[in-house]
Amino acid sequence: MTDITMIRSAAARLAGHARRTPLLSSPFLDDIAGRRVFVKPECLQHTGSFKYRGARSAISALDPDTRAHGVIAFSSGNHAQGVALAASEFGVPAVIIMPRDAPRMKIDNTRALGAEVVLYDRAGEDRDAIGATLSAERGLTLIKPYDEPQVIAGQGTTGLEIAEDAAALGIETADVLVCCGGGGLTSGIALALEADAPGLRARPCEPEGFDDATRSLSHGKIMRNAQTTTGLCDAIVTPQPGEITFPILHRLCGPGLVVSDDEALHAMALAFSRLKLVAEPGGAVALAAALFRTDEIEGDAVICTISGGNVDADVFQTALSRFA
Amino acid sequence: MTDITMIRSAAARLAGHARRTPLLSSPFLDDIAGRRVFVKPECLQHTGSFKYRGARSAISALDPDTRAHGVIAFSSGNHAQGVALAASEFGVPAVIIMPRDAPRMKIDNTRALGAEVVLYDRAGEDRDAIGATLSAERGLTLIKPYDEPQVIAGQGTTGLEIAEDAAALGIETADVLVCCGGGGLTSGIALALEADAPGLRARPCEPEGFDDATRSLSHGKIMRNAQTTTGLCDAIVTPQPGEITFPILHRLCGPGLVVSDDEALHAMALAFSRLKLVAEPGGAVALAAALFRTDEIEGDAVICTISGGNVDADVFQTALSRFA
Repeated sequence: MTDITMIRSAAARLAGHARRTPLLSSPFLDDIAGRRVFVKPECLQHTGSFKYRGARSAISALDPDTRAHGVIAFSSGNHAQGVALAASEFGVPAVIIMPRDAPRMKIDNTRALGAEVVLYDRAGEDRDAIGATLSAERGLTLIKPYDEPQVIAGQGTTGLEIAEDAAALGIETADVLVCCGGGGLTSGIALALEADAPGLRARPCEPEGFDDATRSLSHGKIMRNAQTTTGLCDAIVTPQPGEITFPILHRLCGPGLVVSDDEALHAMALAFSRLKLVAEPGGAVALAAALFRTDEIEGDAVICTISGGNVDADVFQTALSRFA
Repeated sequence: MTDITMIRSAAARLAGHARRTPLLSSPFLDDIAGRRVFVKPECLQHTGSFKYRGARSAISALDPDTRAHGVIAFSSGNHAQGVALAASEFGVPAVIIMPRDAPRMKIDNTRALGAEVVLYDRAGEDRDAIGATLSAERGLTLIKPYDEPQVIAGQGTTGLEIAEDAAALGIETADVLVCCGGGGLTSGIALALEADAPGLRARPCEPEGFDDATRSLSHGKIMRNAQTTTGLCDAIVTPQPGEITFPILHRLCGPGLVVSDDEALHAMALAFSRLKLVAEPGGAVALAAALFRTDEIEGDAVICTISGGNVDADVFQTALSRFA
């Protein structure tokens, strides 16, 4: 199981590879939220999302002989790009199984980063069976998107940086809002904060209709989403929290926060105008919660992740047309 | 006159105030340019452009009694916001004289940052006369946008950071492309590189029709633009290089680079998709030169500034519609 020692080891393996992202702010966002807002812009991470951290952590932790056979991953896009880049850095093959309806940019980028992309139909095909066959044939190692200790350790390095920067800013207590799909980033950050900034509390943020982590936390057990389709916030849509991530969330996190798709689009427009950052819808839900769920947040400062920026231009233009 | 000692002093005064921006990159941009491309994202600076550095440098260098009366500036927008924020940080009044046709966002932001905005008509009114009257009445100190040694020193801190990060990346020789209006950023960076990275060479980048710095360098004397209107790249449109900045450019810079408005828009779209950054048209001309003027650049790496990101949504959407 992932612990702080594993996270620190992952940080050492990522040093000089993952970008050390800052905490950004804007007085205009502070005014909207009624408290100081600090943004951890993982959209600036390599491949445009935090997923590179976990992918590089997991692939760098493999025994070299195993790694040489290559890796395989299932992903709607951001994990795919992270695995593709990390595998290419080690010079090993990567096969990525992606849903046919994933954003075009994510499919194109994954291929351009050197991976072999295998598309499947979300409704009619069994991605696990496809993956099992390919893995058996080629000796590929599966890099899971979140329910994998070394992936969680890699995402947790985000939390080490948040703890360090919060301390430098004199922030001792605050909610840390995290865009949450399967819970890899949220659980990793929660573990890092437990060790390095115990006054900071991680809280998962999700889009309406896909609030499995929020409901799981409030019920104390894993709950599934009713919908199986994807939504605007495709990057963070999973059926349920992970078997490994949920116990960590349950032990360490505050209540989840849920925002509407419109609020996510509005937050994207504000990230554009006030931070000069490109956020994808799923990557903007934590900022949306910081700005529009102010009654559910405590303290005079809030920290939130922008977990990714891989958004097609038409969706971004919708956000600007409606809210900029 | 600005020298490296003044730049280092400005850096000390800016420490803990100006953001320390990184150098970002993308393998996709490297492919387009045919060499490694490193981007200095000053759009992430406070107020969304590098101008905060020079404004804070100049205002922090004033004698406190003088500063207490307040400051005044002429600006189409980015210098205005930088002066407004820096003045508010010192708790002193700021009056900003802005053209009536400046982007709405820049006028709004300057007011929101606490400054008093006085609008004038670019064609029919004499901004210098308006400024002189106000300054005399209230004892305001003029903070010039570029032809002022302490402003150049502040902008030069950008060059200190570029030199430091280039050394860490092992880049010993490269062109450093700088979005150039009056030449404050370009001359400041050139002075910093002369001292800290003599293998790096600053080169001004401009939009077609407003290439006064490029023509001035090639003629060895200050040349004016024929057009007096503003253009798409409003942030970096000036009639001519400064009397103080030009001798520095002439002594230290390589030839200028000129890009079309369409190339600037294309670079904005690529900064969106590949760097997750919001660049304004004038702030994208150096990236455009790095990507689309590859025959005019030497070496296997190029560094370029994104000087600002204060762009109205409709202009940004035009860039995405046409080039994303």
